Amino acid sequence: MDFAYDDETNALLEQVGAFMDAEVFPNEGRLREEIDQLAADDAWTFPAVVGEVRAKAKEQGLWNFFLPGYEGPHGRGLTNLQYAPIAELTGRSIQLAPSAFNCAAPDTGNMEVLHLFGTPEQKEQWLEPLLEGTIRSSFAMTEPQVASSDATNIELSIVRDGGDYVINGRKWWITGAMNPDSAIFIVMGKTDPEAERHRQQSMILVPRDTPGLEIKRGMRVFGYADRDHGGHAELAFHDVRVPASNIIGGEGEGFAIAQARLGPGRIHHCMRSIGLAERAIEMMCQRAASRVAFGKTIAEQGVVRDWIAESRVRLEQLRLLVLKAAWLMDTQGNKAAHTEIQAIKIATPATVEWILDKAIQVHGAGGLSQDFPLAEWFAGMRTLRFADGPDEVHKTSLARAELRKQLR
Amino acid sequence: MDFAYDDETNALLEQVGAFMDAEVFPNEGRLREEIDQLAADDAWTFPAVVGEVRAKAKEQGLWNFFLPGYEGPHGRGLTNLQYAPIAELTGRSIQLAPSAFNCAAPDTGNMEVLHLFGTPEQKEQWLEPLLEGTIRSSFAMTEPQVASSDATNIELSIVRDGGDYVINGRKWWITGAMNPDSAIFIVMGKTDPEAERHRQQSMILVPRDTPGLEIKRGMRVFGYADRDHGGHAELAFHDVRVPASNIIGGEGEGFAIAQARLGPGRIHHCMRSIGLAERAIEMMCQRAASRVAFGKTIAEQGVVRDWIAESRVRLEQLRLLVLKAAWLMDTQGNKAAHTEIQAIKIATPATVEWILDKAIQVHGAGGLSQDFPLAEWFAGMRTLRFADGPDEVHKTSLARAELRKQLR
Amino acid sequence: MDFAYDDETNALLEQVGAFMDAEVFPNEGRLREEIDQLAADDAWTFPAVVGEVRAKAKEQGLWNFFLPGYEGPHGRGLTNLQYAPIAELTGRSIQLAPSAFNCAAPDTGNMEVLHLFGTPEQKEQWLEPLLEGTIRSSFAMTEPQVASSDATNIELSIVRDGGDYVINGRKWWITGAMNPDSAIFIVMGKTDPEAERHRQQSMILVPRDTPGLEIKRGMRVFGYADRDHGGHAELAFHDVRVPASNIIGGEGEGFAIAQARLGPGRIHHCMRSIGLAERAIEMMCQRAASRVAFGKTIAEQGVVRDWIAESRVRLEQLRLLVLKAAWLMDTQGNKAAHTEIQAIKIATPATVEWILDKAIQVHGAGGLSQDFPLAEWFAGMRTLRFADGPDEVHKTSLARAELRKQLR
Amino acid sequence: MDFAYDDETNALLEQVGAFMDAEVFPNEGRLREEIDQLAADDAWTFPAVVGEVRAKAKEQGLWNFFLPGYEGPHGRGLTNLQYAPIAELTGRSIQLAPSAFNCAAPDTGNMEVLHLFGTPEQKEQWLEPLLEGTIRSSFAMTEPQVASSDATNIELSIVRDGGDYVINGRKWWITGAMNPDSAIFIVMGKTDPEAERHRQQSMILVPRDTPGLEIKRGMRVFGYADRDHGGHAELAFHDVRVPASNIIGGEGEGFAIAQARLGPGRIHHCMRSIGLAERAIEMMCQRAASRVAFGKTIAEQGVVRDWIAESRVRLEQLRLLVLKAAWLMDTQGNKAAHTEIQAIKIATPATVEWILDKAIQVHGAGGLSQDFPLAEWFAGMRTLRFADGPDEVHKTSLARAELRKQLR
Repeated sequence: MDFAYDDETNALLEQVGAFMDAEVFPNEGRLREEIDQLAADDAWTFPAVVGEVRAKAKEQGLWNFFLPGYEGPHGRGLTNLQYAPIAELTGRSIQLAPSAFNCAAPDTGNMEVLHLFGTPEQKEQWLEPLLEGTIRSSFAMTEPQVASSDATNIELSIVRDGGDYVINGRKWWITGAMNPDSAIFIVMGKTDPEAERHRQQSMILVPRDTPGLEIKRGMRVFGYADRDHGGHAELAFHDVRVPASNIIGGEGEGFAIAQARLGPGRIHHCMRSIGLAERAIEMMCQRAASRVAFGKTIAEQGVVRDWIAESRVRLEQLRLLVLKAAWLMDTQGNKAAHTEIQAIKIATPATVEWILDKAIQVHGAGGLSQDFPLAEWFAGMRTLRFADGPDEVHKTSLARAELRKQLR
Repeated sequence: MDFAYDDETNALLEQVGAFMDAEVFPNEGRLREEIDQLAADDAWTFPAVVGEVRAKAKEQGLWNFFLPGYEGPHGRGLTNLQYAPIAELTGRSIQLAPSAFNCAAPDTGNMEVLHLFGTPEQKEQWLEPLLEGTIRSSFAMTEPQVASSDATNIELSIVRDGGDYVINGRKWWITGAMNPDSAIFIVMGKTDPEAERHRQQSMILVPRDTPGLEIKRGMRVFGYADRDHGGHAELAFHDVRVPASNIIGGEGEGFAIAQARLGPGRIHHCMRSIGLAERAIEMMCQRAASRVAFGKTIAEQGVVRDWIAESRVRLEQLRLLVLKAAWLMDTQGNKAAHTEIQAIKIATPATVEWILDKAIQVHGAGGLSQDFPLAEWFAGMRTLRFADGPDEVHKTSLARAELRKQLR
Repeated sequence: MDFAYDDETNALLEQVGAFMDAEVFPNEGRLREEIDQLAADDAWTFPAVVGEVRAKAKEQGLWNFFLPGYEGPHGRGLTNLQYAPIAELTGRSIQLAPSAFNCAAPDTGNMEVLHLFGTPEQKEQWLEPLLEGTIRSSFAMTEPQVASSDATNIELSIVRDGGDYVINGRKWWITGAMNPDSAIFIVMGKTDPEAERHRQQSMILVPRDTPGLEIKRGMRVFGYADRDHGGHAELAFHDVRVPASNIIGGEGEGFAIAQARLGPGRIHHCMRSIGLAERAIEMMCQRAASRVAFGKTIAEQGVVRDWIAESRVRLEQLRLLVLKAAWLMDTQGNKAAHTEIQAIKIATPATVEWILDKAIQVHGAGGLSQDFPLAEWFAGMRTLRFADGPDEVHKTSLARAELRKQLR
Repeated sequence: MDFAYDDETNALLEQVGAFMDAEVFPNEGRLREEIDQLAADDAWTFPAVVGEVRAKAKEQGLWNFFLPGYEGPHGRGLTNLQYAPIAELTGRSIQLAPSAFNCAAPDTGNMEVLHLFGTPEQKEQWLEPLLEGTIRSSFAMTEPQVASSDATNIELSIVRDGGDYVINGRKWWITGAMNPDSAIFIVMGKTDPEAERHRQQSMILVPRDTPGLEIKRGMRVFGYADRDHGGHAELAFHDVRVPASNIIGGEGEGFAIAQARLGPGRIHHCMRSIGLAERAIEMMCQRAASRVAFGKTIAEQGVVRDWIAESRVRLEQLRLLVLKAAWLMDTQGNKAAHTEIQAIKIATPATVEWILDKAIQVHGAGGLSQDFPLAEWFAGMRTLRFADGPDEVHKTSLARAELRKQLR
């Protein structure tokens, strides 16, 4: 048992940290201004600053950290456990850093799907430019009419018609899809509603410009449009036709691919959330130590020290659990890490939301406004309680597994 | 001891309820659309629908319920306890109903200040049109640089200069002030920083169009601009000059007036929040009973019934406490109700936030979006934990009083 | 709407308060010593001090406050709402005061059952001495093998045999039954397991000395034997034979009687718990103000003021809800108060446990020991989460009612 | 980074697990009976079964796992990290297992003190028999009159008088000291109240039979006397005289020794608590799956699955934090682990109390009684919130450190 990061990870942490100090943190203000401008113009492209920082990062080889075992020209071959602390670091500037290193969701998960299940042609056409960072992508799974936590509920239909598939249905909360740079959509639907429960679904590639694909509107989260990561679109598919070769991994493979995609993405999300929580604790401390009321700093009064201590105690525990989940995935496979992957999905938003709520409270009403990023982070964190299904579904499943284990 | 509303209240509840069924609820969709249009135009006036509904309510005499003891041409003379359940009812449609009946903050508090402390001239010039509903108003107390929970921190200066006062300083979170209809601002500042702690502050009337009054920007709450109630402005006062007769109640009276204004406003806020929570419970139940996952409605699964029961149990307790505070104010004066007024300030956002969080969770990701009002309500409720100072300040004060009482 | 107690209640509160100051609080130490002695002797009779204080209270006419509408020689005819604040007051010295005024559970509920459903003979034989206070009683409902929250689970059998009933089965948690003074047991069992769900159960009177009634052992609660209220016995009924005239209200009436017994008892329990919580807040404040660590009193540090404030805010809300439930019972009947009676069952232990936990924490490790009553109170309060079925059952039921109401 | 236990640990876990299956779990019932008998006799010696199981464990070399680096005849030389999972395992049968392997507090901490700071003579006289298990010991630090979390508050005086020290003062909560087998007490007091804050205190060895050492009474925790670990005594020292050679490490070393003793003991406590929580989860699952109410098992209803899932998620996080603290102590020293050692002190009782509360609730009222160990475990866990000072003191200290770190 060893709780230290390995040398490669430490070296990379130093490099990435230096880059963030030099290029990321100093550009947060500019990013904010450019996004305000985009909002005023109702435009959804990436702010210019993102492109500039990405170019510098790529030039320095700080790029595509996330693909375990992939040591191609654009990959580093890091394990999940090695990448995890890097993801945490990028979470400290969550609007800019993940994108800067071409490590932003949903591109990461999509690249992983193509890497693991794509045909050589699919890889050449879509994986390469994604790894290069010349295009972005979306992942279309959630549907408005049904409880998406139950995959059998999915209604979008993918019907074979000669050499094509024809797609009809609706999707929403499709992150990145408002951004015209998002060139390719991986779409989950049903090819065979009569098949066995987990063999009904398939995934298929739909280029953005395919006729019949309508991008209806951007969903808001607590009033935020999330332009920094391309919004969250509602989509309608009206007889959208793509060649049969666009299917990923074959008909009926959709559920299995979704499961495979899930684990690493969960690690990324959770570690970034931890980094964001670290930044919030930092802000909370700095504010508490500098703000004076009734003759003393806030840090010397009432419950604020209790909040700081609780934040630290909770976050340390959470980080270790996420790292253990990554380690289990690396050493024993995603399946062996199943309980831990569910556990971090449940624990992360609960812990980080709590910390953000307290950080906001220490900042006064300003903490809810555009003058600090805390409320926007809270909004993002709140969505995690629904990501890949509401927490309650995951808790029920985890409890069932625990009951089985204890009654064996 | 009697827990039933009196006959006058019940009759009025029926009338107001009928109006809301006929004119308010059916117009919520239109309000939403008009606000979206205002947002697109970056305009801050009231949506047309508000004016129309207001006109109808006024015509039916459903107007100005809030001024205890004031039975003038536009008032009903209701006690705080009688008005409280009406306020609750309007909270069920919080974006439209309070304004419809000319019972929206901060106008209500401002009218109360003018009614109690205004000179005949001030009343004629500002109270009359406010009661008529031909103008709106703002209340400028909070400042960006200091912890406003400590009134001695206030920095805005009001300096006598001949027959005028000259005002310099900054304010923020000034609700309603982005709206050009907001014609008059009641501004809290310091006339004598050397006076005794609670005699330094004064309140003064500043018409919107006074030179030197700069409306800088609208503060956001989470991502919401709150156009439905005129936004929350940041203001700068650059040598703003008003006649000496604009002072309210005399120099040094500011703190006392602020305290007097506080109690009834607290009742209004809290009761409206309870109405909003009732609507959220209603939505939670309807969603839970209609949404199916894994073969059963959500209402039949896991923790949802626990949430519904807890919501009911908590809300019943809260309502009674707010009503008791109103009764104390009516029968024994605001001072006697001090602990209760603090208690409802602490209890209300805690309870209602909890209920909204669960209602959102039952709605899935949509609950966070523009498709339901829940996230926007949550944002509004979250601000109450800062209203009139953060909860922590009120808790400390309440605890000090409790300690004094117990150690007597 | 009126939140003031009526004159009769206030006068009685003063009288009872004076008696408690003179006779109850000063005897708490002696009670503790006598109970320790009983424990050393493994005896279960009432400590001598209880009898002495009871005699004085009876002499002063401070006796049997609890029977609504009963103005016999030993009753006061108070409504539930009038008795409620008296019950709160007795809760401040919960080991001695309720018994002192002949207002202790389960006697109160048992007297109510006999008053409402007993035959003249039953009343003469058992109700009279109970009202006189010459005997005590027990109520035997809960069974060890089954989840008693579901009344259809009850297994104890009551079989007609000629002019007798023959009883077989087991009961546990039968409060008071370890005490030889407990002369009569009201026993719930099944006379007809084939009848309609809520007509299977009957209640029957079983004198303590009936052959076949075995008092097996005292159940402990967190290590406490609860000798002050006669312990909690496990009982076995081996062919226990009583005359048919011992049935209460007729065969099949058991469930209905249990329901009728529930409401007032719930009010009593909850109000006493509130009184106990008031005493705990008092102790918490006094300790916090007197204990010094790191150069300041505990009251001036960290989270203690937050705890005190929260305690006050929560307790005020709870009291109002219990009083409203009492008022509903008085004015509209037990059935109309159903939701409120469930709500106070859920809310009371949650609130009071929280307060006690904090009061203990302020007292340091001593707070858990025999030097203060706090841990023992906590233990008693913890059992309320199971009383009349676990909270979870009541929440589910309350939520079902809420869903029905909202979906109407 | 590696989350697997090393081979030596795994081998030992298997051995210890096998011993527990064979000798510990089967004897829990007998232990309970013997303790009940001791209670009836008001005796404080160890139950016979403890001696028997200890003899077997010692014979098999399963003995003294806890002393890091000590590979003497009776030690295993395990690191803190290696011992930690063994401690967890023993926590599953906390009344018997730690004692069985001679790994029970406070003996472990006392042996560590003697091992690190004792003179050769002290070691021979006291450490040897403790390691052999022929005597037991106590550690006397907490005092009744003062907040012991502040070491400068300590009042017991240790005054040099010729070749002796003379000791006067009071102590309480001295675990084990009611048991006559506890032959030696390590006593913390002040040798120089004028010295620098952390040089005033000394530790001194006081044999049980020293004249003037009065064992006054056993403190109860809730209603438990804790006879299984020798109770918690209140002590009075009346001119207790011991030779000067009984001082440990020299005058003024008391605070430093106390700090050194703290870290490993904290790991032991926390890991045992985790083992106990694991057993509670096991019991909760088995009960939930077997108890039927309203036609379904409890496991299929309401919030129970939520509780099981939360229990698992919280406990996994906690364990990792405790293990990391152990690893830090082993690899970087106790000082480097300071924050983690505080964090686990705060996190452990909070998490385990929560789990026990839910396990109790699933067991119904029986869960609070002598029929299950859950309430007794809860009581023990509740004391941890005071152990080595109340949590609030540790939180304040941890927050101060965090503030310093963030403001650097």
